[in-house]
Amino acid sequence: MRVLLPDLPEFRALTQPNERGVPSVDLDFYSADHVPNGPADGVVLWLASGATRDKLVQVTGLKWLLTLTAGIEHVQGHLPQGAALYNANRLHDRAVAEHVVAGMLAAGRGLHRFRDAQKRGVWAAPKFPSQSGLHTLEGQRVVIWGYGHIGKLVEGMLQPFGAKVFGINSKTAIDLVDYRLAEADWVILLLPSTEKTHGMVNAELLGKLKRGVWISNQGRGNLIVTDDLLAALHSGQVGGAVLDVTDPEPLPTGHPLWAEENVIITPHIASTTGDLVERGARLTRDFLLDLIQGREPEGKVEAGRVY
Amino acid sequence: MRVLLPDLPEFRALTQPNERGVPSVDLDFYSADHVPNGPADGVVLWLASGATRDKLVQVTGLKWLLTLTAGIEHVQGHLPQGAALYNANRLHDRAVAEHVVAGMLAAGRGLHRFRDAQKRGVWAAPKFPSQSGLHTLEGQRVVIWGYGHIGKLVEGMLQPFGAKVFGINSKTAIDLVDYRLAEADWVILLLPSTEKTHGMVNAELLGKLKRGVWISNQGRGNLIVTDDLLAALHSGQVGGAVLDVTDPEPLPTGHPLWAEENVIITPHIASTTGDLVERGARLTRDFLLDLIQGREPEGKVEAGRVY
Repeated sequence: MRVLLPDLPEFRALTQPNERGVPSVDLDFYSADHVPNGPADGVVLWLASGATRDKLVQVTGLKWLLTLTAGIEHVQGHLPQGAALYNANRLHDRAVAEHVVAGMLAAGRGLHRFRDAQKRGVWAAPKFPSQSGLHTLEGQRVVIWGYGHIGKLVEGMLQPFGAKVFGINSKTAIDLVDYRLAEADWVILLLPSTEKTHGMVNAELLGKLKRGVWISNQGRGNLIVTDDLLAALHSGQVGGAVLDVTDPEPLPTGHPLWAEENVIITPHIASTTGDLVERGARLTRDFLLDLIQGREPEGKVEAGRVY
Repeated sequence: MRVLLPDLPEFRALTQPNERGVPSVDLDFYSADHVPNGPADGVVLWLASGATRDKLVQVTGLKWLLTLTAGIEHVQGHLPQGAALYNANRLHDRAVAEHVVAGMLAAGRGLHRFRDAQKRGVWAAPKFPSQSGLHTLEGQRVVIWGYGHIGKLVEGMLQPFGAKVFGINSKTAIDLVDYRLAEADWVILLLPSTEKTHGMVNAELLGKLKRGVWISNQGRGNLIVTDDLLAALHSGQVGGAVLDVTDPEPLPTGHPLWAEENVIITPHIASTTGDLVERGARLTRDFLLDLIQGREPEGKVEAGRVY
């Protein structure tokens, strides 16, 4: 079996004849400058440009592709007939869930505003608690829109804080969706980008939410119509937003979102950890051992699934 | 029974002849400008200056004082012989615990650094995950120093994140304390200010910790020798700090702590919420009803206890 892997030290280590390696597989490595010639049974796709990806999916003899991402829209539909697709939700789930909760707690405890005061060297203690704008998550109504594995992790993490969590997925009755959204203090978007979800958080939907609601987008930037979000922030209809993804992305210098006090922006790093590549290499090793030993690896994406 | 209360609308509401009130008690109100004359059975002390407090503890006939704070060092020792002291831990516990976890998550997810980038209008995505400096709390070793009710709440909140929590209190064996501290990724200070704890986090103690450890101080500012913390931050011995309390406090403009990238400062608001005064008034109502109906109220502070 010949497999193409990203040319990173953590993946190079898989060739070693020790407990970190899979020396029984013929491993070769691609980079932005170089995609090896010849046929390959499998490709582990990660941290590659669109051009590199286009070369990799056309490799002769491709039987499977493992993308070490959670999203699949960059490969689904690009693979040759009969090639199996796998993704790596479990590599990202915990970090994303923790990032969601981090943003919610930071917002409630005012960490973003106090950081701004810190940069000005100002001890910004509120004169009266009632003017603090601070709260805890106790009793807060949280709608998780896109209630899969990450959503359930978020729910478990929020439980000790006393938040009231409601998950919405594609099977939730539409009138219940409207009811849950209308009473939510937080709306957490964990949806993929599809034709249905593109632009779904627009002026009309924002207008149906409770005044002062906070939005957290850890799905895809284009779920939200950015101009509509800005208008809702300015009118007070939306209290604030925690955005790990934006539209446009990356957010260009000078974009008005940067200047919003109650918008907390991170640069699409919800799933990033310092040991992510190391964990990706370990997952790849387990995946290859499953294949060698005749087990079906985790993460098979059904044909036709778009997320 | 005559009781003196803070002159705030939420406490004035206690005079109303409805379910929010305690009309059977003779309630009177003090402010910075005015402490009522005449004897009183009890005082509810909150949000008062030292000068006002000094007048209130000298009121004739004082049988009890309820301080709506968690700390008691501002009143213990100032009360007349035989007067009972009560405090209000439960008014603050959940918010403080949540604030601790908020700071830990913000640090691990880099929210403070991304906020700085946001203010500059920069999409600061790390080029490689290994350079991100980001992590989750999974597997992190967390020492909670001052392991009382708040510490146990923190422990419960951290559990779903997969952190490994070790509580230390005055009964923990000294060699176990040293062992736990030496391996900790986080040291959370929830201690009161006493002769024993003043300045305990000094250069010597910081030198015994694991390189890169983060410190969270939600107790009292003078637990930490600020200059020693700054030196440890500069040498890399300490990775960062989350400080809701400081020494000096308030931290003056121009103090070097403000400029530390990996120091997250909030202005002693860990227990603050927008509804804090409302909750304090409700707690006071329950307290007065307990007294009227002959039950021992919660929060009795033993004579001689210093925290």
